[in-house]
Amino acid sequence: MSFDLIIIGSGPGGYVAAIRAAQLGLKTAIVEKENLGGVCLNWGCIPTKSLLKSANILNTLKKASKYGIITNNLKLDFEKIILRSRSISENMNKGVSFLMKKNNIKILYGKAKILKNKIVSVKDKYGNKKKYNAKNIIIATGARSNLFKKKEFSNIIGYREAMLLKTIPKNILIIGSGAIGLEFAYFYNSIGSKIFIIEKMPYILPSSDIDISIQLEKSFKKSGIIIKKSSIIENIEYLSEKKCTKVIIKNLKNNNEILYVDIIISAIGICPNTENLGLEEIGIEMNNTKHICVDKYYSTNIKGYYAIGDVISSISLAHVASYEGIICVEKITGLNPFPLNYNNVPMCIYSNPEISYVGFSEKEAINKGYKLKIGKFPFTALGKAKVNDSTDGFIKVIFDEKYGELLGCHMIGSGVTELISEIVVARKLETTSFEFSQCIHPHPTISESIIEAINNAYNKCIHI
Amino acid sequence: MSFDLIIIGSGPGGYVAAIRAAQLGLKTAIVEKENLGGVCLNWGCIPTKSLLKSANILNTLKKASKYGIITNNLKLDFEKIILRSRSISENMNKGVSFLMKKNNIKILYGKAKILKNKIVSVKDKYGNKKKYNAKNIIIATGARSNLFKKKEFSNIIGYREAMLLKTIPKNILIIGSGAIGLEFAYFYNSIGSKIFIIEKMPYILPSSDIDISIQLEKSFKKSGIIIKKSSIIENIEYLSEKKCTKVIIKNLKNNNEILYVDIIISAIGICPNTENLGLEEIGIEMNNTKHICVDKYYSTNIKGYYAIGDVISSISLAHVASYEGIICVEKITGLNPFPLNYNNVPMCIYSNPEISYVGFSEKEAINKGYKLKIGKFPFTALGKAKVNDSTDGFIKVIFDEKYGELLGCHMIGSGVTELISEIVVARKLETTSFEFSQCIHPHPTISESIIEAINNAYNKCIHI
Repeated sequence: MSFDLIIIGSGPGGYVAAIRAAQLGLKTAIVEKENLGGVCLNWGCIPTKSLLKSANILNTLKKASKYGIITNNLKLDFEKIILRSRSISENMNKGVSFLMKKNNIKILYGKAKILKNKIVSVKDKYGNKKKYNAKNIIIATGARSNLFKKKEFSNIIGYREAMLLKTIPKNILIIGSGAIGLEFAYFYNSIGSKIFIIEKMPYILPSSDIDISIQLEKSFKKSGIIIKKSSIIENIEYLSEKKCTKVIIKNLKNNNEILYVDIIISAIGICPNTENLGLEEIGIEMNNTKHICVDKYYSTNIKGYYAIGDVISSISLAHVASYEGIICVEKITGLNPFPLNYNNVPMCIYSNPEISYVGFSEKEAINKGYKLKIGKFPFTALGKAKVNDSTDGFIKVIFDEKYGELLGCHMIGSGVTELISEIVVARKLETTSFEFSQCIHPHPTISESIIEAINNAYNKCIHI
Repeated sequence: MSFDLIIIGSGPGGYVAAIRAAQLGLKTAIVEKENLGGVCLNWGCIPTKSLLKSANILNTLKKASKYGIITNNLKLDFEKIILRSRSISENMNKGVSFLMKKNNIKILYGKAKILKNKIVSVKDKYGNKKKYNAKNIIIATGARSNLFKKKEFSNIIGYREAMLLKTIPKNILIIGSGAIGLEFAYFYNSIGSKIFIIEKMPYILPSSDIDISIQLEKSFKKSGIIIKKSSIIENIEYLSEKKCTKVIIKNLKNNNEILYVDIIISAIGICPNTENLGLEEIGIEMNNTKHICVDKYYSTNIKGYYAIGDVISSISLAHVASYEGIICVEKITGLNPFPLNYNNVPMCIYSNPEISYVGFSEKEAINKGYKLKIGKFPFTALGKAKVNDSTDGFIKVIFDEKYGELLGCHMIGSGVTELISEIVVARKLETTSFEFSQCIHPHPTISESIIEAINNAYNKCIHI
C-alpha cells in the first residue's frame, strides 16, 4: 500500500498534521503503537487538567462558607478523581479516532521502523510486519520522561505513573520545578499530601521571569508546599522496614537535610523518542541530545523525511507540535506557510495560581540589549479578582523603550492561562503600547489588568 | 474655591476621568451625592458579580461528586451571600477613596447644581450650600432603572432592591432579557427561585447575534428558567390575601397566560440622571430621551461643559464611561486622543453560560452590505471544555469575504468574558484571518477555540 504521507506518531503534532494533510488532498496514514492522541491526550495536557480541576473544586469548596454556602463532611474519592481523568482521555481518544475516519486517514496500529526509499515497516501487536510506501514521511514520535535513577528505586516515578496512583501518598518529593513538577505539586498538595519540591536552580520555574518565580514561591509556600531551591539530591536510600525513602538533600551552602518520603516524582524534563526507528540506518541527522535536526519547514537532511514536535529540539509543547505539523504539511503540498516564530509561543502552567507568559523575560530582554519600559498591575487592585477572592498575582509587560515594541508579557494568578493569547495576537500584529492602550477591555474582568499594566509602564495606570 | 476641573458624579466615568486629570496636572474636584464609585461599584458590575460568584460555587458544588469530591448537607446562607456582595462594594469604595486622596482629588460630598459661568453649587446633607469655580465641568451623573409601573406596586423592584432582598423569593418574574435581567435570572434560579423571564422581542437578549440568543435560551431552559418571548404584560394585580402578584401575560398570538409571582424585577433599561442639575438653565442641549448631546470629544454645546457615561446616548457600560472620561480629559489638556470606536466596544454578560461579543452581528453585517465568511467552533469539540464539564457554547466569527476584515465575534459559554479582549485587540490592529490564524494559542485552553472558529470560516478547522 502506498500513501502521499505517512506520519509516525499520533500525538498533537502527528494527528493535527494528518488532518491538515487530508484537507489538502494527501492520501495519508498515521502509525500509532499505543493510543491515538499521544502523551498530550493520554498522559499529559488533558488528564492532568482533569486532576487539577478536581483540586480546584476541592479548594473552592474548602472556602465555600465565605460565599454563603455551607457544606459538611467534605470527603475525597481519590479513585473517582483518577477515573474521571482517565475517562476524559478515553473520550478524547475516541474523538481523534472519529476525526481520522472523517478525514479518511488510515490508522496503522503498531511499531514503525523507517526504511530507506521512504518505506515504513509497521509491526503489529501480534508480531506481523507490513511495509508501506510513502512520498513523504513525518516523524512525530514525541518524547518521554527523563527519569532520575529509575532502575534502582521503584518509588521514583514519572508523570505517567503519577497520574495512576492507587492511594494519596502522605509525602511526595518532586524533583524539578518546571510545568509538570508544579502541576503535580499543586494537585497532590490540594488533596492532602505533604509536598517537597527540589530545584537545583536558585529560583523555581527557572524558565520564567524572575518576578513570576518569586510570586509563585510565595503562593506555594502559603499553601504549605515546601520548596528547596539551589539544592540537589545527594543520596537516596529505600528503607524497606518503614516502606519509605530517605533522601539526603544538599544545598549550595553544603548543608545536608534529610527527608523521608513515600513517592518521588521525577520531573526533570523529557528525552526524544528517536531510538529503534531506523533513523541511523537512513542517515537522518540528530544532535547530541538525540533530537532530529530540521530546517525551518521541518525537513530533515534526507529529502522526503520530516520531523515535528518533541523529537526536534524546539519547544516541547502540544500547541507547538500542532503548528509545526500544519506548517510542515502546508510546505509539502506547495503552499507558502510562514515559519513559526518561536519567540511568540505562549507557555502555560495550570496550577493555582496559574502562570502564562510569552516573549522575553526582563533578564532576556536586558541581555538582548534593549532599554525597557516595564509595567505591572497587581490583582489586589482589581475588582474582578476581589470578587473571585483570588488577588494573589499580577500581570507584567515589558516594552522596548525606543519603539514601544511589546517584548514580553508575564502573568500569574487565577485565570491567566486564558489571557495570554491576546498578547500573542498583539505581538503578531506588531502592536505598540499606544495602540494597545486604546483597546477597551470589558469591566469587570481579569483581562482589564492587561491595559492597566501597559498604562503603568507609561505612568497612566488608573487603579494604582 | 476654584478648580481646573470639577466632575459631577464619581462612577466609573467620573472617578477615572478625575484620576487621569490629576495625572495630567489638573487641580480636580469630584462631586458625589452618595457613594464613591457610582452604580457600577455600589449597585451594578461589582456587587452583582459577587452574587454570581456564589451562584457559580453553588452550581459547582451540586456536581462536585462527578469530580470525586463528596459533600453532604449543602445549605445556603442567603444573608451571607448578600452581605459578601455588600462588603466587596464597601471595600472597593474605600479603594476609590484612597485613589482620590493619592491623586490629590478633592471630594465634595453633596448634590450638585451646575450654574452659568462654570460654577458648581454643592448642597451637603445638612443643607449647606457652597459654590465652586471651575475652568471645566464634566457631567458624569449616570443613569437609573427605568421602572415598570413603579408607583402602584411595591413588589416591582429594580436592580438595586433586587440585590438587597431579605429572603429568597419563591417565584420571580423578570421583565426584560438584557444583561441585568439575565444575570438576576441566573442568580436567583441557581439559589432556588422559580424564574420567569418576559421579553417583548422574539428572541432573548435581542441586542446579540441570533445564534447567541438561541443557545442561551437552550441553556437557560435546561436549567429550569421559563422564558416568555414575544410577550408583554397585559395586567398586574396584587392579591393581598395571598401576598403575591397576579400577572396576565399576552403573547403575539393574543393568548393570555396567568402567572403568580412574589417579586417582579424590572430590567427594561435605564434612563439618564439629567434632572435637577440646572442643565436647562445653562442651555445645555439634550435629545428627546433626555440624554446630553456631545461631540466626539464629549463637549456639550456650551464651551467648558462636558458629559460622559450614561448621561450621553452612547453605550451604557462602565468601561465605555471610563474611556470616555480619559478621552475627554486628554482633549481638555491639549493632548490628541483618538475618538472612541463604538463598534469595537466589547459587551459581557456574566450569567452561566457567560456571553461576550464585539462588532457586528451576522444580521447587522448583512444589513451593512457585506458578503460574509462565517466560522463557528462548538465547545463540545474542545478538550478544555470537556475537562471543565462546560461544553455548552461556541465561538462565532464573522469575516468580510472580500478583504478578510474581522467584522464581529460572538461567544457563549463558561469563561468567554475573559476572551473577548483578544478580539478587540485584533480588530483594533486591523487583523485579517490569515494573520490571526498564525497566532499560536496555548493548549489546553478555551481560547484555542478562537483559532478553530477562524479556521472553520476558511475550511481548515482541525477538530470538527
